[in-house]
Amino acid sequence: QILLHVRLHSIISFTRRLSPVALGSSFLPNSSLQFGAGARKLHAEGNGPKSSPAAAPDRLPFSRVTQEDLAFFKKILPGRTITDPDLLESSNVDWLKSVKGSSEVMLRPQTTEDVSQILSYCNSRNLAVNPQGGNTGLTGGSVPVYDEIILSTALMNKILAFDSISGILTCQAGCVLENLSLYLEKRDHIMPLDLGAKGSCQIGGNVATNAGGLRLLRYGSLHGTVLGLEVVLADGRVLDCLTTLRKDNTGYDLKQLFIGSEGTLGVITAVSILCPRRPTSVNVVFLGCETFEQLLKTFQLCRGMLGEILSAFEFLDSECMRLLNTHLRLPNPISDCPFYVVIETSGSDPSHDGEKLHNFLEEAMACSLVNDGTVATEETKIKALWSMRERVTEALTHDGFTYKYDISLPVERIYQLVTDMRERLGDRAKSVVGYGHIGRTRRRTDMKSVYQ
Amino acid sequence: QILLHVRLHSIISFTRRLSPVALGSSFLPNSSLQFGAGARKLHAEGNGPKSSPAAAPDRLPFSRVTQEDLAFFKKILPGRTITDPDLLESSNVDWLKSVKGSSEVMLRPQTTEDVSQILSYCNSRNLAVNPQGGNTGLTGGSVPVYDEIILSTALMNKILAFDSISGILTCQAGCVLENLSLYLEKRDHIMPLDLGAKGSCQIGGNVATNAGGLRLLRYGSLHGTVLGLEVVLADGRVLDCLTTLRKDNTGYDLKQLFIGSEGTLGVITAVSILCPRRPTSVNVVFLGCETFEQLLKTFQLCRGMLGEILSAFEFLDSECMRLLNTHLRLPNPISDCPFYVVIETSGSDPSHDGEKLHNFLEEAMACSLVNDGTVATEETKIKALWSMRERVTEALTHDGFTYKYDISLPVERIYQLVTDMRERLGDRAKSVVGYGHIGRTRRRTDMKSVYQ
Repeated sequence: QILLHVRLHSIISFTRRLSPVALGSSFLPNSSLQFGAGARKLHAEGNGPKSSPAAAPDRLPFSRVTQEDLAFFKKILPGRTITDPDLLESSNVDWLKSVKGSSEVMLRPQTTEDVSQILSYCNSRNLAVNPQGGNTGLTGGSVPVYDEIILSTALMNKILAFDSISGILTCQAGCVLENLSLYLEKRDHIMPLDLGAKGSCQIGGNVATNAGGLRLLRYGSLHGTVLGLEVVLADGRVLDCLTTLRKDNTGYDLKQLFIGSEGTLGVITAVSILCPRRPTSVNVVFLGCETFEQLLKTFQLCRGMLGEILSAFEFLDSECMRLLNTHLRLPNPISDCPFYVVIETSGSDPSHDGEKLHNFLEEAMACSLVNDGTVATEETKIKALWSMRERVTEALTHDGFTYKYDISLPVERIYQLVTDMRERLGDRAKSVVGYGHIGRTRRRTDMKSVYQ
Repeated sequence: QILLHVRLHSIISFTRRLSPVALGSSFLPNSSLQFGAGARKLHAEGNGPKSSPAAAPDRLPFSRVTQEDLAFFKKILPGRTITDPDLLESSNVDWLKSVKGSSEVMLRPQTTEDVSQILSYCNSRNLAVNPQGGNTGLTGGSVPVYDEIILSTALMNKILAFDSISGILTCQAGCVLENLSLYLEKRDHIMPLDLGAKGSCQIGGNVATNAGGLRLLRYGSLHGTVLGLEVVLADGRVLDCLTTLRKDNTGYDLKQLFIGSEGTLGVITAVSILCPRRPTSVNVVFLGCETFEQLLKTFQLCRGMLGEILSAFEFLDSECMRLLNTHLRLPNPISDCPFYVVIETSGSDPSHDGEKLHNFLEEAMACSLVNDGTVATEETKIKALWSMRERVTEALTHDGFTYKYDISLPVERIYQLVTDMRERLGDRAKSVVGYGHIGRTRRRTDMKSVYQ
């Protein structure tokens, strides 16, 4: 129990979530937004380890939803005020099924004005609100702790504008990332971020959580690519920072505060974002390495030899591969290795890119950095190779209850943590796995322990 | 007079400077920082047009510096409390000699602790402070309006750390941009920003003003590349956001507020910044175009054909060229044209880059987008071509008094503004010129009118 308790705290500090109570009280004294989940009740179902009661913070003195409140919501959101427990079920539980709230009402606004009315009302009534996007977060921040009203952005899914000359996309917060990608691909552009959860996650949630994702290496963070935001503050006021100038030095860059603030300062209702041109040449390589050290040497070599066309460098370990095989029937595209790497290049000249890649692979083989590998240039094979990395999280959910730690450490020690945790947990965890981005700076990885 | 007055206001709104009084009072009620210059007395010397008295805001009710204050400063900053009017002269006047203050004391701290002591003292004494970096700003924001104490960061010029694996540089705010560039070049990296003023401007001032510069196109804005800041607030408290993690989601990203806030929220004392690898292959092309429309078509072609190796696309008009010839004796490297373009490529493979460039130039010639041009791959010739763009501002200062407008407009209308202003001003201006970055989004340009 003690070990578990310690680990729970670790989740919070490792995933760098905002401390709900402290921020709520010091930044928004009159606000009725209740912020995220923090430490709290664990597990939606009964099989996993139980938390100590101390893990959940006390419910703050918010009002309870009354019949009058519901009547008001039904009046301003006819047909979009959800109280059916069956329909609420999936919005009360997070994607990993690790935490569960008990909200009894979900509101589905379509416009910024709807959101403004909801927050203004809830603020005046002292009702707690939990903004929710695609509910794909892996750190328990997207579902209520108690009976907070769920404000779902799912119906705010309109693309407002796209300028193909500048590459600037403006859309509502509830647009699903993959839908935006498909829309842009037809217009010769791509989103500057990509995530495994793209089929469900929403751009508003991506921005609110400052999602890094698979293209951070090439296109940088959302602090650079998000050009504008429209936000509704806790009292219902609308903050319009939806400029589409690439460099706007008018006053303070207030929108930056909302990037990564996880809904604690307001609800993001619209986003404008700078989208890169769609590369004319994309290659994906799947490689196997004998040791983590060789994997890191491969990254160094890759940075030098692939240079400006390197767009992603991701890894997974053999435990991840085992779970992909077992639960998703995804076969290993190469021979068994302790570590696997997914490298993506994106460029404007297929022959140049092919030549750079060929030279890199030859060198990596010559230096014995790599045991085996396969290259894809064709769309369906590229998708198949990417799914080896993107579907790891999904494979884990089929294996049991998952604890996720999303951490940054100096490169030379990052995988040691997985090894140490494996030893420490022994039989108590079904598996302890490591996978994630190998960034340009400190390497960041996800470590997961799966419990029966 | 009236026309001039209108234009003065235009400077302020076009350059998007912060309104000093409003921000000072609403954000920092007890602060003694006096913020920037705003509209105010014009011209350090007597030849240019005079401003109306209404152009300068009233002096706020700050205290005057007393002998006791000076004694305190001399005690904590022995030998670094400057009161000699001759030494103060250049810090009271901006680089364009368009505005002049009357500060009687300049403090030259060496450490964050020094800055903290100065601001804490000035705050308690209600003394106004004007933070100053390289004093290379072109919008009058770097010099005092009245008798503010100048807090110069010039002696805070230590490089604190550089990690060649991650590319993260950490240094004091007063480091001169060019010195940082030279330091990094020896270590196989470059700064993510470059400016014409690099020989004098300081990184702290670059961040405080959110300088875009010549590499914005490739490496993005400082909101993405600045990883951490250390800032001293107006009351002397030190805010340490000097993390070096590329993606740090701990709490709110407060440092973002200081990027572009021009010293109004505090004094930046240290910066950590992500530096790209030094490209192994650099080419610079200088081209001449017949019309601005052809110039824009050249940019579109260039984006498609040079793709990921395009690192800069800048332009100047024939009036700029004339002033470069006349005042700096820089000869035109190609035949006379109405418009000139500087294109830079940076990549990892000289033969691939050369081939891409060759194909692009052939196509641009074939489409008659370009009249004449020259290519440089060798260091000294690259520098010579770059100076045609970088030294325009310097050439203008030799021609008379300059009014600078730094504006963003939709691409198709940006140069029309220069033409319109030329017509509007007629004989009253010696020359009206246009030059600047052609960005990826809205095109941004600098327009200048020079007066006798």
